[in-house]
Amino acid sequence: MEPVSSLQSICYKRGSLQLLDQRKLPLETIYLDIQDAADGWSAIRDMVVRGAPAIAIAAALSLAVEVFNLKAFNGTSDDAASFINKKLEYLVSSRPTAVNLSDAATKLKEVTSKAAATASEAQSIFQAYIEAAEIMLKDDVSSNKAIGSYGASFLQHQLKNSKRLSILTHCNTGSLATAGYGTALGVIRAVHTEGLLERAYCTETRPFNQGSRLTAFELVHDNIPATLIADSAAAALMKDGRVDAVIVGADRVAANGDTANKIGTYSLALCAMNHKIPFYVAAPLTSIDLSLTSGKEIVIEERSPKELTHSGGGLGEQVAASGISVWNPAFDVTPANLIAGIITEKGVITKMSSDAFDIKDFVQKVDQ
Amino acid sequence: MEPVSSLQSICYKRGSLQLLDQRKLPLETIYLDIQDAADGWSAIRDMVVRGAPAIAIAAALSLAVEVFNLKAFNGTSDDAASFINKKLEYLVSSRPTAVNLSDAATKLKEVTSKAAATASEAQSIFQAYIEAAEIMLKDDVSSNKAIGSYGASFLQHQLKNSKRLSILTHCNTGSLATAGYGTALGVIRAVHTEGLLERAYCTETRPFNQGSRLTAFELVHDNIPATLIADSAAAALMKDGRVDAVIVGADRVAANGDTANKIGTYSLALCAMNHKIPFYVAAPLTSIDLSLTSGKEIVIEERSPKELTHSGGGLGEQVAASGISVWNPAFDVTPANLIAGIITEKGVITKMSSDAFDIKDFVQKVDQ
Repeated sequence: MEPVSSLQSICYKRGSLQLLDQRKLPLETIYLDIQDAADGWSAIRDMVVRGAPAIAIAAALSLAVEVFNLKAFNGTSDDAASFINKKLEYLVSSRPTAVNLSDAATKLKEVTSKAAATASEAQSIFQAYIEAAEIMLKDDVSSNKAIGSYGASFLQHQLKNSKRLSILTHCNTGSLATAGYGTALGVIRAVHTEGLLERAYCTETRPFNQGSRLTAFELVHDNIPATLIADSAAAALMKDGRVDAVIVGADRVAANGDTANKIGTYSLALCAMNHKIPFYVAAPLTSIDLSLTSGKEIVIEERSPKELTHSGGGLGEQVAASGISVWNPAFDVTPANLIAGIITEKGVITKMSSDAFDIKDFVQKVDQ
Repeated sequence: MEPVSSLQSICYKRGSLQLLDQRKLPLETIYLDIQDAADGWSAIRDMVVRGAPAIAIAAALSLAVEVFNLKAFNGTSDDAASFINKKLEYLVSSRPTAVNLSDAATKLKEVTSKAAATASEAQSIFQAYIEAAEIMLKDDVSSNKAIGSYGASFLQHQLKNSKRLSILTHCNTGSLATAGYGTALGVIRAVHTEGLLERAYCTETRPFNQGSRLTAFELVHDNIPATLIADSAAAALMKDGRVDAVIVGADRVAANGDTANKIGTYSLALCAMNHKIPFYVAAPLTSIDLSLTSGKEIVIEERSPKELTHSGGGLGEQVAASGISVWNPAFDVTPANLIAGIITEKGVITKMSSDAFDIKDFVQKVDQ
């Protein structure tokens, strides 16, 4: 039994795209019509859409809509490829630090170059681009659904003593951060769909409140039984015996399993370990960076002090004393020894045979 | 070397009282003139002053000012005692759940009854009351300064490897919560006065932001080097090796040392243990409740969901989705095994001789 309507932040059919305006959540649910790459650029720059996978796909689709609705194009296939490549570069400039976005642009440029090498009609290039962008959307959703499905059946086997599971998550890893369904929140959705979810707990996720603003919204929208807590209340909740598992997303997973994720993840992992509660990471294989030996190589971005000194994640009125110093890291690194498993779209990476993850081996096997 | 001017929330001299309006902090520093018990009642009810010790003393002093400025009083000493007792009961009704406030009222009633039994002049009763209220103010400040002094010299001996100490604290336990100086923040003040403080770290202390609003304000005011962090960033800060000790206050300490304090304290204690960082509680002996065998007997108050669903600790605009459930405990309990010492105004209670605190023994010894 699938929930009646899992929240959709990206509504696409060939030739038309609407994006859920996340700035208005949770008070208003408004979709903005995106007609071309310029609309897509503004939507990304103005935070209508956020979350690395969601940004990349929204950008790709905005250009797909523009190209589909082109009345006329005077030029060769090379001109078409060049037209698309320029637009892609322009789209990347909307959020220059978003790695998924520039990765997606690189892949799409390869598609158009390849097409231009074999076809002479501009229309063939446009067609190839549109299909490639649509596949990205489809792949992200199906990859998330696979994560959810692997995660749900893994949890079902791991936690056989409880009839239903209460799962704590952090930040937003759901339909609003991806093309749909979500990673860690996708696992919670899948556990709920299987009828195995007692309750989801979401942290408010300071300082930008992605938990209270977005995750709580998704959970209420999908009628999933859910409770919001302060980040700092997680340990007390665990001590009360009300958490069976913790599942979070990942910004980057190193080759040894060390995982960078939203600030506060490491604290949850320590508290979970002290209460003997399994702690899982749910992420697509694209989040695994085998070039990083360990989490020590991950550089942590520090964000604006205003997120802490002012309300509304820095946009509202002043809360803290003028002149106070602030340390506001966006992420922290959870060491692999605190992680019980990494749930991917190809299966769950565990430490079955040793004390360490063999992620490289897993990736090689599933690539074959 | 004493800091030039440690922040004062209660400014009293015989016949006059001004309270710092904490609702306006940190943006404005405004003192309100309190002329009588009615002014005191309103100031407490309207949150001009908060923090259990501060409330009790502000109430007692508001009545002392009223009594001192009485132009005429027609009546016997019994009438005077009855006049005071009624006013005290009225003051207690401003925040009925504040234990320190009703404790103080009970003690002050004993003073007036005793005085009325030996004197016949109304004026003698008033005089006795004023002196008793003034002693409460003086005692709270000197008790806090003793906590600070014991704490600073204890830390100096415990942590001899570091030249200067970086100390993390939670919530507000400073001049704004007490009659002056503070408990956990008093220890930080004393360490700073001794020239031994590298840096104080204060958490924002969700959901009511006592850390960002009040503790940060006190630290900036007193020119103490200080950095504000999100509650959930504490573990990452510890992992970076930037914390030498954690010191928090206490709402209640059980006979075995289990300590109830602001939500998030338990999480900090777990993270500190995992990083081998000593975790201390600083509290006056009045916070120790020997009638409680352990923390299991402490009932945890749950507060309004609005503190999480709306900004500004519940007073601002809606942040979270309508319909989300909320769990918002005001306190959590940190088990004694995570606490390295309890810093009181009579010395530091440690586990020198065994694995457990012998708080009863300590209290009996210092009472002699």
